[in-house]
Amino acid sequence: MKHITLIAAAVAATLGSMAFADGHEANPAVKARQAHMQLYAHNIGILGGMAQGKIDYDAALAQIAADNLAAVAAMNETTYWIEGTAEGTKALPTIWDNMDDFMVKQDGLTVASAAMAEVAGTDLASLQGAMGDLGGTCSACHREYRQRN
Amino acid sequence: MKHITLIAAAVAATLGSMAFADGHEANPAVKARQAHMQLYAHNIGILGGMAQGKIDYDAALAQIAADNLAAVAAMNETTYWIEGTAEGTKALPTIWDNMDDFMVKQDGLTVASAAMAEVAGTDLASLQGAMGDLGGTCSACHREYRQRN
Repeated sequence: MKHITLIAAAVAATLGSMAFADGHEANPAVKARQAHMQLYAHNIGILGGMAQGKIDYDAALAQIAADNLAAVAAMNETTYWIEGTAEGTKALPTIWDNMDDFMVKQDGLTVASAAMAEVAGTDLASLQGAMGDLGGTCSACHREYRQRN
Repeated sequence: MKHITLIAAAVAATLGSMAFADGHEANPAVKARQAHMQLYAHNIGILGGMAQGKIDYDAALAQIAADNLAAVAAMNETTYWIEGTAEGTKALPTIWDNMDDFMVKQDGLTVASAAMAEVAGTDLASLQGAMGDLGGTCSACHREYRQRN
């Protein structure tokens, strides 16, 4: 993991100097992890909207959102979480002091997303039943490692 | 597909009114597809950087980037490409007149990404060999369906 992290940091620096030479754009690692989070938000927004009755339950669409969420959650995030890239973002620098715990929390989301994908297309009650664990994994990580506002 | 698209459009509208009531934020479907594209760019940037010798080849990191790329490319994009959401983006409205062709082109990327993931961790020559097809699928879609600048 350490080897990969160091290589990934070098890659992020290289991509940064390749693509963002004007300095106005965020580090590519930051852009990538914010994009990754955006896809969480999009798919959890659909599932959560259904769970709360703000969006009509549709089994096929619930399954699409849950499968997409599980696919994103299963991705390897090594190339995103490069030490020294917290500034200007909501990521707390304590992430890098607690990387093992951070990854345990990421794994929690991976597991909860897979569980959601197992049941989201069954019926609304099943989707709602899986929502608590899923939302809990978001909160668990944000509470520790994201700025409050 | 049509049923899902209509539902997805309703979802996008609902999420939009839920989360972005001030009107300053992009439609959530637009934000999601731009995030999806950002993850393509991030992972193709790593693979392309290695192919071009701008980043040292590292088999493990190449495999991570290729697996992530393949995972994103295999996702179902139904909830992103909502008719009427081209304005203010580089997406051309002709996408919605040619949705079958657009999806064929998306499938091309899915196949090329899976092929890259098969070989990216083998050696640099194999990665370079898969890069042409992969880049070709990007170009094929952008040429038809993305504004030039």
